[in-house]
Amino acid sequence: MTEINLKDVNIPKATAKRLPLYLRTFLNLDMEGIDRIRSTQLSQIMQQPPITIRKDFSYFGSLGRKGYGYDVQYMIKVLEEILDVRETKKIAVVGCGNLGKALINNGFRRNENLEIVCAFDNNADVVGDKVGGIVVADMKRFKSVVRDKGVSVAISTVPSQFAQEAVDVIVDADITAILNFAPDRVRVPKNVHVQYIDLTTELLTLILLDEKLGS
Amino acid sequence: MTEINLKDVNIPKATAKRLPLYLRTFLNLDMEGIDRIRSTQLSQIMQQPPITIRKDFSYFGSLGRKGYGYDVQYMIKVLEEILDVRETKKIAVVGCGNLGKALINNGFRRNENLEIVCAFDNNADVVGDKVGGIVVADMKRFKSVVRDKGVSVAISTVPSQFAQEAVDVIVDADITAILNFAPDRVRVPKNVHVQYIDLTTELLTLILLDEKLGS
Repeated sequence: MTEINLKDVNIPKATAKRLPLYLRTFLNLDMEGIDRIRSTQLSQIMQQPPITIRKDFSYFGSLGRKGYGYDVQYMIKVLEEILDVRETKKIAVVGCGNLGKALINNGFRRNENLEIVCAFDNNADVVGDKVGGIVVADMKRFKSVVRDKGVSVAISTVPSQFAQEAVDVIVDADITAILNFAPDRVRVPKNVHVQYIDLTTELLTLILLDEKLGS
Repeated sequence: MTEINLKDVNIPKATAKRLPLYLRTFLNLDMEGIDRIRSTQLSQIMQQPPITIRKDFSYFGSLGRKGYGYDVQYMIKVLEEILDVRETKKIAVVGCGNLGKALINNGFRRNENLEIVCAFDNNADVVGDKVGGIVVADMKRFKSVVRDKGVSVAISTVPSQFAQEAVDVIVDADITAILNFAPDRVRVPKNVHVQYIDLTTELLTLILLDEKLGS
């Protein structure tokens, strides 16, 4: 297999965002017993123009072959290498309301390397509760617990009005990757990455696509 | 205000997806008391290249002025018109585990026109429970309830292995807009729009951006 060192490759953010989606697609194809796929079929499944897919893959060398398409097994190996999902990532959940509980209970089953190892809340009624095998800790203990457990990613389900406060605690514990379920932008140092899950925006987009663009 | 009729405008899906994000950004600016913003500043806030923003807005005529930038109030009006969020959308939640409960309880507070009006499950232990003022109905009653209530959007929190089954029931009730929390692609007729929320992908993207692309 070609060695791919992403540290030397300058890929656009939009491409980076599609890579996990490519991986999922190839994993699904593999599950269905499909060995190879033509770029036009891949384009249909991914709902991406063929030129976008070719451009995305071009950052990692020549992955497909003309008239043959893509070898599913090979693509899985390459994308797993790029995404480096073979190393376990330890995750902290901040905020243990229904959403926090859903995340802890459901986990990230399809990727056994994404592991929620601790959970926090600042509500005394919730601290000490056991959710999916994890005892909810007081937010005051965040820094010491995540350092103990080697956490590198935090997921915040804290509502917008308290999100900045929660993110400040997370950043103070030297965590630089935060998935935030509150859509309002928070202030973080430049080396910290925040990914927002904005359900209202997703819903509005869906309605727009459905109503305005038709079928 | 210029009349904008989106039915005559052929906008790319990528642009459509950014429109609610633009609206949110201008609403945030308005909350902070900002009247106008230069395109370079907007580009920084949105984390989108200026050319992308100009191109997106170009589909709706000339929205900014050179040397002045964008008028925040005016942009809110235009984007609300485009997104048509002033009309109430009635929403059904399918699957009332922790995630379904979180959605019903949290609602879509920042947009009072997105209203969850009914919820369904096929688990007899859950049917009849009251969640945030809504009594969970049996999935068998889906078609009649959503027609009664005038539902036009469904959110499915049903796990992957049962998602297709749930989506088939939703489609059978003539709902054409589905937000799906199970990331595996479901089969739907061409006139049905499915928007996927894939938390594993979001998390992998975040980790990729954080680790591989640095600060």
